[in-house]
Amino acid sequence: MLKDIIENNQNYQPGLSIDCVIFGFHDNHLKVLLIKVPRSTKSSLPGGFIPIDQDIDTAAVTVLNSRTGVEGVFLRQFATFGKISRNDQHFGKNVLEYLKIEEEKGKWLTQRFVTIGYYALVDFLKIIPNPVNHDEIVEWIDHKEVPELILDHKEILDKALDTLRTELNLMPVGYNLLPEKFTIPELQKLYETILDKKLDRRNFLRKITNIGILTKLDEKKSNVAHKAPNLYSFDKEKYDEVLKNGLTQGW
Amino acid sequence: MLKDIIENNQNYQPGLSIDCVIFGFHDNHLKVLLIKVPRSTKSSLPGGFIPIDQDIDTAAVTVLNSRTGVEGVFLRQFATFGKISRNDQHFGKNVLEYLKIEEEKGKWLTQRFVTIGYYALVDFLKIIPNPVNHDEIVEWIDHKEVPELILDHKEILDKALDTLRTELNLMPVGYNLLPEKFTIPELQKLYETILDKKLDRRNFLRKITNIGILTKLDEKKSNVAHKAPNLYSFDKEKYDEVLKNGLTQGW
Repeated sequence: MLKDIIENNQNYQPGLSIDCVIFGFHDNHLKVLLIKVPRSTKSSLPGGFIPIDQDIDTAAVTVLNSRTGVEGVFLRQFATFGKISRNDQHFGKNVLEYLKIEEEKGKWLTQRFVTIGYYALVDFLKIIPNPVNHDEIVEWIDHKEVPELILDHKEILDKALDTLRTELNLMPVGYNLLPEKFTIPELQKLYETILDKKLDRRNFLRKITNIGILTKLDEKKSNVAHKAPNLYSFDKEKYDEVLKNGLTQGW
Repeated sequence: MLKDIIENNQNYQPGLSIDCVIFGFHDNHLKVLLIKVPRSTKSSLPGGFIPIDQDIDTAAVTVLNSRTGVEGVFLRQFATFGKISRNDQHFGKNVLEYLKIEEEKGKWLTQRFVTIGYYALVDFLKIIPNPVNHDEIVEWIDHKEVPELILDHKEILDKALDTLRTELNLMPVGYNLLPEKFTIPELQKLYETILDKKLDRRNFLRKITNIGILTKLDEKKSNVAHKAPNLYSFDKEKYDEVLKNGLTQGW
């Protein structure tokens, strides 16, 4: 696969790649989708090259799918990484050696690659990774147990997490990540998991209800011993409106 | 200059460029720095190519300086643009014709270029553009009177303005854009100019003072007929703190 790309590199944008940071949330766990490649002890983000006939946003979808089998995820571009030190000469040479490609032919790969980062937040139970390259393992790793990553992938992952946390101040999250009916403590736990910190219960309640995207249901959570908490659902119309216009009432 | 680059294109990152959106504010006007090139009726953002031995953030500074003479501006990366349609074949061919470069040699230029956008907001009186290419005119244009731009530069400019407006919700602005001592109405006017809308006086006062970055001075604005407004200055220490931690108290 990679060998094909390098040998037919005229079909790909030179010096440019895409890396995807796919965060998965479910039941108070935040994970990230990583790939273990047999030729390295390190893991990597799902990434790849940009077909010359594809817009970069389309190429991001192609890349994610071609490494993980994952489809139907809405990817957002968040930053582009291009330090000259990001390409480790050894890394490129090891890949060429592993693939049995001559150094001259593999120059396309060992030059400096700038990479465009895309990210998404999904329910990890709904996304079943299915590696396309059968010598690779695609797996959800708890974001606090991320192993050593190749190149600058740790920096890319950290920046994506920063972006995700900033976005919590700009747009609503939770739709598609929580059950259709949920309690405020469950929603709070989603925020706490992403932010990796405890939030004040009353402050959270006040802020989240002020946004106006929640519908209080005439139901309480069952099988809870006492003081059963109220159930809520998202008002999808208002949710989409806020998603479009932004969370902050602004100035 | 461009001819040099194309003929020595092995010194530059292939298929990748940088474009800079420099917003200038002064006295309630928002302008943008544009270049008029003699070979086109359209204007362009200051942009250029990435030396292979420079980090992209460094290259952004190099590019801005090499087109406009502008130095000492803090550039932020905001998005990368890479639609396949963004390269207009005619545009590239016209450039080659103008520069008298053979089509084969100029292939480096006529392939799809992905471009990384950087932006800044400065006081336009403090930045004196000084074109390096003597056949180009670098000028501050009112952001509401931007003429037709080359390629997708209008889309890049619009996205930068969106980013600037979003950032108003995330970090303080005004330092280096207003006189050392200013009135709240002057600060409000800065926000209104960037957002291109009227703000409620009392709401603005409440929100801006809540941030805690203003020091009320024991002075009033002079030469004002009656009801002279109070003067303020930024508490630089708190300003920098908020700049670092973000404006929103968050969750």
